[in-house]
Amino acid sequence: MGEFDLINRYFKRAAKSAQVLLGNGDDCALIAPAPGQALAVSSDMLVEGRHFLPGADPKLLGHKALAVNLSDLAAMGAEPLGFTLALALPRADEAWLSGFSQGLLALADAHACDLVGGDTTAGPLNICITVFGQVPTAQALRRSGAQVGDDIYVSGAHTAHGPEMVGQARLALDMLQGRVPANPELLARAAPRMHAPTPRVALGRLLRGVASAAIDVSDGLLGDLGHVLRASGVGASIQADTIAINFIAACALLTRANGQFNINFARQTTLSGGDDYELCFTAMPSAREAVQAAAAQANCTATRIGQIERESGLRLLDAQGQAVANTFASWDHFA
Amino acid sequence: MGEFDLINRYFKRAAKSAQVLLGNGDDCALIAPAPGQALAVSSDMLVEGRHFLPGADPKLLGHKALAVNLSDLAAMGAEPLGFTLALALPRADEAWLSGFSQGLLALADAHACDLVGGDTTAGPLNICITVFGQVPTAQALRRSGAQVGDDIYVSGAHTAHGPEMVGQARLALDMLQGRVPANPELLARAAPRMHAPTPRVALGRLLRGVASAAIDVSDGLLGDLGHVLRASGVGASIQADTIAINFIAACALLTRANGQFNINFARQTTLSGGDDYELCFTAMPSAREAVQAAAAQANCTATRIGQIERESGLRLLDAQGQAVANTFASWDHFA
Repeated sequence: MGEFDLINRYFKRAAKSAQVLLGNGDDCALIAPAPGQALAVSSDMLVEGRHFLPGADPKLLGHKALAVNLSDLAAMGAEPLGFTLALALPRADEAWLSGFSQGLLALADAHACDLVGGDTTAGPLNICITVFGQVPTAQALRRSGAQVGDDIYVSGAHTAHGPEMVGQARLALDMLQGRVPANPELLARAAPRMHAPTPRVALGRLLRGVASAAIDVSDGLLGDLGHVLRASGVGASIQADTIAINFIAACALLTRANGQFNINFARQTTLSGGDDYELCFTAMPSAREAVQAAAAQANCTATRIGQIERESGLRLLDAQGQAVANTFASWDHFA
Repeated sequence: MGEFDLINRYFKRAAKSAQVLLGNGDDCALIAPAPGQALAVSSDMLVEGRHFLPGADPKLLGHKALAVNLSDLAAMGAEPLGFTLALALPRADEAWLSGFSQGLLALADAHACDLVGGDTTAGPLNICITVFGQVPTAQALRRSGAQVGDDIYVSGAHTAHGPEMVGQARLALDMLQGRVPANPELLARAAPRMHAPTPRVALGRLLRGVASAAIDVSDGLLGDLGHVLRASGVGASIQADTIAINFIAACALLTRANGQFNINFARQTTLSGGDDYELCFTAMPSAREAVQAAAAQANCTATRIGQIERESGLRLLDAQGQAVANTFASWDHFA
């Protein structure tokens, strides 16, 4: 199978979005955002051995590669339009390609996001997606919009399979790598959070005009919130245990047994565990009802976890309002 | 040096284009094409050992990684606006990063093309750039626009360093890999064509409204022209020796010695040698003066090499009008 056969068989499809004037098969795709809207653009690269393990299920990988990019659109309040896929493959493996394209295109279809072009080459497995969305320019959820006095939220969901929240992806990784004893019921729920995260695209769109700033949690909640604080020139206090206690409760619910994890483990996992792709966002206290309405409409939850303050830096408080030392580092690919 | 230090030190800069509303440092960049224009988008991935040799000069590599993407904009007639860079690096090597970013950003500045975002990760060396340009929707140079009776052209240039034309990048590769005896004068001219190609961005823009179809020559002239023919539902006759004789003459000029290469070698090198990033385009015979005016204004040449015909397929003719067998395969990463 040659390069062009491979593209035709697994990745070529007609563009559906009215904003995509020309899809793949030319030197460039042509995309025209609707009048008054800007194009939101983001790139993420997934490398075997870093972002996923060798032998990872190609269908889940196809899903995840697009999901992490859609999550960036969500964090901007943008509506997905299309994406390019650049793929380096050790060899043209039809079983792998079939699974990968299924997972990728199923998520693309669910978000009406057209595959508009890309590149395929031989090389160590590497998946680079660049995603395009549109957002009314003035309503884009920038990192720099947080104001003193704003509430800080993190998203989650209650699904038929149980609660979804930050920390679960990290818990799955810890169990799969043996740092935490594997509990089959917990792992069954946590593993899909790591392998096939749900980008909060609908929530991001509904937060336009409601949230003052947003980011998606990819490297860890506190680390990613730190980007918002620096971009906005503000600091924050976080009720660290609001989310840690929720995490313990969620784990207890899934295992029907209490006491699985202590508070220190829960803090570590929820505050520094990355790869969750929940949204962390800020909004004025007067917008509390609007935030909950947006979350409900998106079938999500929005948990209030702190406040934006004038004093720079991040202060963590326990359930009794006592300071907790911040030892929760984020993921860094070169640290 | 951590991931964010690396980005700040080598790649963070303020956006200059009026069309770039938000540059790097947020979840997405925001780009708004001018009214009436569509965004042209293309992605290319460069892998160590496939697209460049281990130990390649990082400054040239930075140039080339962006050049091959700008070439796709040129082939669409689009004006560059910005690009994202996703980079997998075995380690954070400051000397490499410094050279790479210099080469990359010098070419970006020359084309007023803003680095608007991206991703950095550890992994086998891989450079994935997605480039954005704008083009009036109706004037985009699509592959599908070639009409029966159109002339077929390939671009080149006469520079202070000598002629530039298709085949030189392949000649450099053949010399560097020992398939052709290295001639220092020829190699000195051919190597920059392979290591630091010049994207024909100005020519592409000037061909708006003049050319009927265009593609850039990355995989080989005949193979890339074949994409135009299939997309347009037409065939072509090519005066194979027009360009082969030009190639022999150019080599003779550079070496001040005739007879370096025979016609078969020159055909092979010019018709199937890729990595040149010249433009192959079609235009009506009534546009011959306009084509030459566009080429002159862009400091390029436009050599007429054939005609679009109704009969599908590609027919090669020698200088006497006799058929030449087409044994000139294009590059295929999985063949």
